[in-house]
Amino acid sequence: MVGNVIVGQSGGPTSVINSSLVGVFKTAKDRGAKKIYGMLHGIKGLLDDQYVDLCEKIRTDIDIDLLKRTPSSYLGSCRYKLPEIEGNEATYQKIFAKLEFLDVKYFFYIGGNDSMDTIKKLSDYGTMVNSDIHFMGVPKTIDNDLAVTDHTPGFGSAAKYIAATMKEIIRDGLVYDYPTITIVEIMGRNAGWLTAASALAKGEDCEGVDMIYLPEKVFDIDKFMEHVRKVSVAGRSVVIAISEGIKVADGRYVFELSDHVEFVDAFGHKQLAGSAKFLANKIGAELGIKTRAIELSTMQRCAAHMTSRTDITEAFNVGGAAVKAAFEGETGRVVVLKRISEDPYMCITETHDVHDIANVEKKVPLEWITDDDYVTEELVHYIRPLIQAELSPIMVDGLPHHLNVNF
Amino acid sequence: MVGNVIVGQSGGPTSVINSSLVGVFKTAKDRGAKKIYGMLHGIKGLLDDQYVDLCEKIRTDIDIDLLKRTPSSYLGSCRYKLPEIEGNEATYQKIFAKLEFLDVKYFFYIGGNDSMDTIKKLSDYGTMVNSDIHFMGVPKTIDNDLAVTDHTPGFGSAAKYIAATMKEIIRDGLVYDYPTITIVEIMGRNAGWLTAASALAKGEDCEGVDMIYLPEKVFDIDKFMEHVRKVSVAGRSVVIAISEGIKVADGRYVFELSDHVEFVDAFGHKQLAGSAKFLANKIGAELGIKTRAIELSTMQRCAAHMTSRTDITEAFNVGGAAVKAAFEGETGRVVVLKRISEDPYMCITETHDVHDIANVEKKVPLEWITDDDYVTEELVHYIRPLIQAELSPIMVDGLPHHLNVNF
Repeated sequence: MVGNVIVGQSGGPTSVINSSLVGVFKTAKDRGAKKIYGMLHGIKGLLDDQYVDLCEKIRTDIDIDLLKRTPSSYLGSCRYKLPEIEGNEATYQKIFAKLEFLDVKYFFYIGGNDSMDTIKKLSDYGTMVNSDIHFMGVPKTIDNDLAVTDHTPGFGSAAKYIAATMKEIIRDGLVYDYPTITIVEIMGRNAGWLTAASALAKGEDCEGVDMIYLPEKVFDIDKFMEHVRKVSVAGRSVVIAISEGIKVADGRYVFELSDHVEFVDAFGHKQLAGSAKFLANKIGAELGIKTRAIELSTMQRCAAHMTSRTDITEAFNVGGAAVKAAFEGETGRVVVLKRISEDPYMCITETHDVHDIANVEKKVPLEWITDDDYVTEELVHYIRPLIQAELSPIMVDGLPHHLNVNF
Repeated sequence: MVGNVIVGQSGGPTSVINSSLVGVFKTAKDRGAKKIYGMLHGIKGLLDDQYVDLCEKIRTDIDIDLLKRTPSSYLGSCRYKLPEIEGNEATYQKIFAKLEFLDVKYFFYIGGNDSMDTIKKLSDYGTMVNSDIHFMGVPKTIDNDLAVTDHTPGFGSAAKYIAATMKEIIRDGLVYDYPTITIVEIMGRNAGWLTAASALAKGEDCEGVDMIYLPEKVFDIDKFMEHVRKVSVAGRSVVIAISEGIKVADGRYVFELSDHVEFVDAFGHKQLAGSAKFLANKIGAELGIKTRAIELSTMQRCAAHMTSRTDITEAFNVGGAAVKAAFEGETGRVVVLKRISEDPYMCITETHDVHDIANVEKKVPLEWITDDDYVTEELVHYIRPLIQAELSPIMVDGLPHHLNVNF
């Protein structure tokens, strides 16, 4: 009989973060864990004694299948970062006391590179005090910006949603017999993986987006306007994908260029429009073309009605692999995905030292971004396998059903 | 052998407008039409001699099934309104000459109440000049604002997408342990049907949206702020659905209240933010709560990856019924849907005089809007059957496939 398990979710939600939770839960249960606790709102919840017995919440096989299809963090999330160990030992003593009170021997944290910092610090402290608690990181982020791992669970489904939605937006733009320009703003402050996924829209049945701008490359607004002018001269509709994080040469975000937007709130704060809106206004004003700005907003991270089966399965697998590794004695490590074959695509799980992963951001390689404002075939080839296949939603009364959050 | 057929699409696209096109095409073909032409960009295209032979474009059964799943108007669209007949006989003579040149005896126009104006004027002129051409309207609009018909094809799929997306947005808002407010802006300048569909999110697995505001009722901004303050005191996340068309007592749209937004473009035009953005800024400024504005934008009208099978089938049926009626001699009429049973839901097609339908807007009855900023069970009961069942996309390489526009 192995010890007790606790699992938490942290950072921004994804469509498949709960599949990883199921992976941890089911594998721990199958391998004989006594109790499986869920922290509510991550490590912050644990500090506030907010946790649940997951066996009381996930009771049936249908619960498990619903949870796999339920978007956003089932256990809630937090953006809380643990302080440095040195000088803050009291915080760590408090956490470890709570874990010991619950007789927890295995601690799993599902999150991105910020969340892996939590695993790093807890396992470092555990080593310092000779604790027998095992700390494992389970990767998750739509941003795909985690180091070492081939890609992160959550990215494939977001990429699939973005590519499918782009195809629909491109179609929508085609209907009128005058040119229109649509600028779609996609998540990613520092890494352009999600925006790059818009390139997958192109195919036999779709001409694809016309221009793609990632934050990895300085955004040249004059060159952009010139490119827009050129393509719009052809008289057809144009769709442009931009990352929310694109910046001009002096380091300002594009939305920070909008000096003209002067909504001043009651506290005197200047409210700025998004980058897509700013560029749409600029095109409308300077080129006189009908332009629309679309922000995919939170939909791109929680569109569980449109997930990649590959992603859902891998999300489950990294959870399960974390449990297996921890039960076999590993600690201070993160489960990573390793692509062992390109064609056919095959990925296995491994574990890797959390110190190489925490707080590191993996960006799109510059050689995958082309000078004509697009991305290379290599990039498309890298992403394409990750959006393959579907996990049909369980439809009830016309809508996708989710597992109820009953706490 | 019957005569030739021409069909066009007009107004804003929907997810299922091509299912109506297929309904016209397939029924006309099955009933022996010699030629089936498609106008490109509606009546405007016909005037410019832009049309195609649809038998050359829709060749196989798989083409038909792809087209049913292809969003946005396959034939393109226009917003062109025919001039009054009196004083503009030349325009009508030109159109009728073109139809006679193509030996067209049956004219079908798929569109909303503006497009039905085209059918009205053409059939009126046809009567005046004793033409033997039959003009039939095929209803389409996500806005559901067409008179006489129980509902319009296109609405059910948009409603399904909105309700499903709302469930996901509500989930996304729940993750943090502090209150957030999300305001979602939904299409509908004058009729609130689409925004009302957000009420369908509520169910066993979802607490639903908290407040719903339709354009049918004057928007009281002070009452709104007070309501937001009250619900946010409870400390939980709040999701609010607003129609883009909500107006305050003096008749201004809510987005027109943003006097502070002063982006002035090169032509001196003031650019205004949307109503959701304006309200989000106001809440953030006055109540100090983290607030996000989301615009569902064009996604709500072209999300063919998430359609209602009921809607797709009815869209096909109204196209087919128009052909049947025209071939049997009707003209100047529109196919309408009649709900003949509530439970189980059953709908049949009938035809109705276009003069009662063109240019008329059907709004949400005021008695279906409650004083506590929500909608009644009757309204939910009216919409619910329209979102039932699915037509799975044909997935190719991870994405929904569409019929190529090859003209």
